Amino acid sequence: MYSFKNDYSEGAHPRILNALMETNFQQEDGYGEDSYSQKAIELLKGKIGRSDVDIHLLTGGTQTNLIAISAFLRPHEAAIAATSGHIATHETGSIEATGHKVVTIDAENGKLTASHVKAVINMHTDEHMVKPKLVYISNSTEIGSIYLKSELRELRDFCDAHNLILFMDGARLGSTLCAEENDLSLEDLPNLVDAFYIGGTKNGALLGEALVICRESLKEDFRFHMKQKGALLAKGRLLGIQFLELFKDNLFFDLALHANKMASLLRAAFEEESFTFLTHSPSNQIFPILPDTLIAELQKKYAFLVWERVDGDSSAVRFVTSWATKEEAVAEFIEDMKKLVK
Amino acid sequence: MYSFKNDYSEGAHPRILNALMETNFQQEDGYGEDSYSQKAIELLKGKIGRSDVDIHLLTGGTQTNLIAISAFLRPHEAAIAATSGHIATHETGSIEATGHKVVTIDAENGKLTASHVKAVINMHTDEHMVKPKLVYISNSTEIGSIYLKSELRELRDFCDAHNLILFMDGARLGSTLCAEENDLSLEDLPNLVDAFYIGGTKNGALLGEALVICRESLKEDFRFHMKQKGALLAKGRLLGIQFLELFKDNLFFDLALHANKMASLLRAAFEEESFTFLTHSPSNQIFPILPDTLIAELQKKYAFLVWERVDGDSSAVRFVTSWATKEEAVAEFIEDMKKLVK
Amino acid sequence: MYSFKNDYSEGAHPRILNALMETNFQQEDGYGEDSYSQKAIELLKGKIGRSDVDIHLLTGGTQTNLIAISAFLRPHEAAIAATSGHIATHETGSIEATGHKVVTIDAENGKLTASHVKAVINMHTDEHMVKPKLVYISNSTEIGSIYLKSELRELRDFCDAHNLILFMDGARLGSTLCAEENDLSLEDLPNLVDAFYIGGTKNGALLGEALVICRESLKEDFRFHMKQKGALLAKGRLLGIQFLELFKDNLFFDLALHANKMASLLRAAFEEESFTFLTHSPSNQIFPILPDTLIAELQKKYAFLVWERVDGDSSAVRFVTSWATKEEAVAEFIEDMKKLVK
Amino acid sequence: MYSFKNDYSEGAHPRILNALMETNFQQEDGYGEDSYSQKAIELLKGKIGRSDVDIHLLTGGTQTNLIAISAFLRPHEAAIAATSGHIATHETGSIEATGHKVVTIDAENGKLTASHVKAVINMHTDEHMVKPKLVYISNSTEIGSIYLKSELRELRDFCDAHNLILFMDGARLGSTLCAEENDLSLEDLPNLVDAFYIGGTKNGALLGEALVICRESLKEDFRFHMKQKGALLAKGRLLGIQFLELFKDNLFFDLALHANKMASLLRAAFEEESFTFLTHSPSNQIFPILPDTLIAELQKKYAFLVWERVDGDSSAVRFVTSWATKEEAVAEFIEDMKKLVK
Repeated sequence: MYSFKNDYSEGAHPRILNALMETNFQQEDGYGEDSYSQKAIELLKGKIGRSDVDIHLLTGGTQTNLIAISAFLRPHEAAIAATSGHIATHETGSIEATGHKVVTIDAENGKLTASHVKAVINMHTDEHMVKPKLVYISNSTEIGSIYLKSELRELRDFCDAHNLILFMDGARLGSTLCAEENDLSLEDLPNLVDAFYIGGTKNGALLGEALVICRESLKEDFRFHMKQKGALLAKGRLLGIQFLELFKDNLFFDLALHANKMASLLRAAFEEESFTFLTHSPSNQIFPILPDTLIAELQKKYAFLVWERVDGDSSAVRFVTSWATKEEAVAEFIEDMKKLVK
Repeated sequence: MYSFKNDYSEGAHPRILNALMETNFQQEDGYGEDSYSQKAIELLKGKIGRSDVDIHLLTGGTQTNLIAISAFLRPHEAAIAATSGHIATHETGSIEATGHKVVTIDAENGKLTASHVKAVINMHTDEHMVKPKLVYISNSTEIGSIYLKSELRELRDFCDAHNLILFMDGARLGSTLCAEENDLSLEDLPNLVDAFYIGGTKNGALLGEALVICRESLKEDFRFHMKQKGALLAKGRLLGIQFLELFKDNLFFDLALHANKMASLLRAAFEEESFTFLTHSPSNQIFPILPDTLIAELQKKYAFLVWERVDGDSSAVRFVTSWATKEEAVAEFIEDMKKLVK
Repeated sequence: MYSFKNDYSEGAHPRILNALMETNFQQEDGYGEDSYSQKAIELLKGKIGRSDVDIHLLTGGTQTNLIAISAFLRPHEAAIAATSGHIATHETGSIEATGHKVVTIDAENGKLTASHVKAVINMHTDEHMVKPKLVYISNSTEIGSIYLKSELRELRDFCDAHNLILFMDGARLGSTLCAEENDLSLEDLPNLVDAFYIGGTKNGALLGEALVICRESLKEDFRFHMKQKGALLAKGRLLGIQFLELFKDNLFFDLALHANKMASLLRAAFEEESFTFLTHSPSNQIFPILPDTLIAELQKKYAFLVWERVDGDSSAVRFVTSWATKEEAVAEFIEDMKKLVK
Repeated sequence: MYSFKNDYSEGAHPRILNALMETNFQQEDGYGEDSYSQKAIELLKGKIGRSDVDIHLLTGGTQTNLIAISAFLRPHEAAIAATSGHIATHETGSIEATGHKVVTIDAENGKLTASHVKAVINMHTDEHMVKPKLVYISNSTEIGSIYLKSELRELRDFCDAHNLILFMDGARLGSTLCAEENDLSLEDLPNLVDAFYIGGTKNGALLGEALVICRESLKEDFRFHMKQKGALLAKGRLLGIQFLELFKDNLFFDLALHANKMASLLRAAFEEESFTFLTHSPSNQIFPILPDTLIAELQKKYAFLVWERVDGDSSAVRFVTSWATKEEAVAEFIEDMKKLVK
């Protein structure tokens, strides 16, 4: 059984494990004040091209989302998210648990536009309702779509005009930045969003997200929030060493490119068989719509998620590839699939 | 510069890193549903001698404390802790951030007794005050002391009589169980406390605490709370593999024994020079009271914490040893210290 | 300018003010332990026909909703509400501020059915999502509709089958119980819902909601929650005296009947002119759809809410009547309206 | 049985009830936007001598404390209070329920000084601890003491130097301002504290506290917080009418003067009999230390609180007077007491 269920089925890229080995007995300060974390942060600032951002290393997406959003908002302020946004669906009310409503709006392809945000703002008129203050987007989204630079620029302008915070969940940012259709670079992001993160967990690390806070007013005392929510690791080196390894050369991007390439092979194969897709997803998640009979056959040998029923005899399924996806496995899958389709 | 500042200065025991290497490309389910976590949990149940406990793997002490306590309490209920308790001092108000007051009471040697708890209960008389409901103890404590079985039994009986939850922070439980004066075993704990955890981070793991929930009524839906607070790691295997390695033989205890032995060498050396101690601490943290001049000299070559001023010319300092503390370093320190004292 | 904007434009029924006068210098205990509150609670238990319910007097709807819901739920549990439900729209995220998500579902006419609740339950499958636990309904709803006994029975059965709490916001319960179409009585409610409240603020009191907790497991320590949220009035007598006056005879129902009668006069007048309504609302709120030109004319002399645009030249407006609405004002309004229509 | 238990045993001053009667049928907007509340706020601004403060009317002390403090603080920030401070003792963890720790320090006579606050600040050194940010004082305090202008000035200067918010609980501010020893006026307060409130509940109103926010940065969106916490009364007029009546002439101060005068009569009588007091309390609460035998005799005819045991045969008791305390009752009590002492 080979799994295309997600991009966190394996451990870490071997270079990361080696780095952990090599640094293992070096004594370091705790709680993120180790030299590796400091170096990783400096390295990331260089890659982003901005020395004035603040960077913090955290362990996962839900943790990063809840700490950032609760640190950024006052009690009566709310986040705006697409109905499909991760904070709205699959984080067990973690934002609400910090006291904040998540106002959702249906967004085609999982992507918020200025007009979506405007619709939410217009509905919230006075102190009997929450005050929408932060726009949460994920890039790539939960359904594999990505934001173009012009789309982020439009959101940025709207947020500026309405004094809103624009926050980008980058759990799968690697795949986004390496997508063929992508026109964004790390250097663009501080000009477009107020805070974002670079996901390590789903791109080769054991765990780790690097949160980048770009807006000056959001930076103060952030480590207090991390500690208060249980996110300051005693051995913070674990995060620093990994990000250092991922970014000291092109590893982070190489891994994402591989994941995207594997997704492209699958995508092309489904297209060749004339299958359609639930959504346009140029990143490492694809959602072909397949006959239930084919799904059942494929499930005998491959693991993947059945996403949603489309009609009486077909369903959308999700295939996720990663840095660890084996090209041979993809080739074998394609061969098996094509055989079954004939 | 050699550091005795804490027990998380180094990475992980090499066997743990090896285990991560060996299992790295095995595909596993995420969020703690991997086979390693499942095996680790079964193994721990065996070591504890109880198949009816629930065990969850988390990343650190503050995270475990805040999730457990907020899951166990209703909104008006409070935790009772020693004034020196970690949740009361060095967790940035993490319990209060979940809505619960921590009621503190001064406790000699950092250890709560039934009479301390009784004093708190007696002060809380009606609905104008919080309802103290959970007794938080750390074992070993923040100042190195440990609870004897009879002391836990007395607390247990009081908690039973007053319908209180007894919760034990075991971030340094390994050192406790391996202390010479200790009379507790893992098998005793489910009979004495309602929930406790076995600290991995400070005893050889990269990160990881194994929370054991013994009382039936506290078990329901615990994974919801973990997810809501950002504690379900996508690659939960990282925790499972480590605990499996620590407990598949005697590694966990061997590491703690080593830490304690290193502390004992230091303790004995200070005693030989007739120094006194701030506190009786049979575990891996010791608090000798030293002349400030000696402290200044030692600091040129060794890192350790100056804990508190004792009088005009001496202070209590903290030395912490761990599985990674080198016996040669301890020997050299002792030699240096003795030379300086002469 | 006469106002039909809401049912809290005036003070209190004169008998209530008289009762406050007459009891004014009687010395009483504070925080709801006064003899009037105790008597009011006993009286209400009699009216409800159940001595085993717990009753608490609070100051307003939002306060009652947030205290009850946060007291009833564990941190990972969520409330289910209609998209139009008051807790979802006009309480400034008060439920989320206590840590709980409000899951909404579109409900025609503002009324939840078992199939709505089922749809929500079915979507929430595991610990990556909140656990829907409490069904919030308002009766009458925010758009004037009411629940029939059979509809509540169906919800009750579904909640029993799925271990859900059924909570009824009764800010306008008086009007509901006195509606012509209504088949519910106060005595029915403990058999149908787990908790509900009887709104005083919108039916003749200065302020006051009587929360009735029917389910045994929800009763414990409720006064702690009231105090913690700032809801225990030092002069709790203020609430007790009012409910005593409202229920010592038929005053509460007489006032609601008057409000409904005034609404019926308005409704009939709009119907005579062949206007349609946004919603079927047999209670004291009606939502006729009127031409914008007529609205503009009426607004010169009468205050009321423009609810929502319906098409290019007409809008739904809201008229609310109360115990204090003057029959002459209604007659004059109708006359004016009819003149304008001609 | 005549009660000296507290200053909220009776209803409201008759002028207030009359004002409610007279205004009863005037139609007004809800939620504090009525003309009475607006006028009361303007009137209070005049009395305070500052048109640039924001004033909000709330229902009680706990509610006001929790809303103000949670609106003013970010999640990691804490309040500092005397151990005897009301938010630390008798508000059921209401501040913690909004997520904030209350750091307490023992303060003689219940009054915080700059050196107390400094001690707390010095103990909080990094992000592993909360960040103390708001100094909570009550004036008069829970044990009847009052702050002199020079004492508030010293606190103000310290808070300015350390960027702290100074917040004053004025539930009994009337009695304070009318105490013989007092040198403060309403006009002084905006220069000394960042926010404070003027207690109506304990000085003649049915309920009501007027919160005055002086510091510009604390004002924004305050009504959102009130609504979110259930504090915006639908019939906000109830608060406006009362404060209007209390301040349209000297009524508020006349009532406080009466309360103080009654306390002075009691105080003088106990002094004449050579009883000592637990605390120096120039306001409307006094704490004489009496023999237990005398206490038992007095309790047959009078209600008052036994505050704390002082030694084997005597206890401190609390007598509270109010605007409603009858001079004849005081005279009779004194006569009875003196007889018993002989």
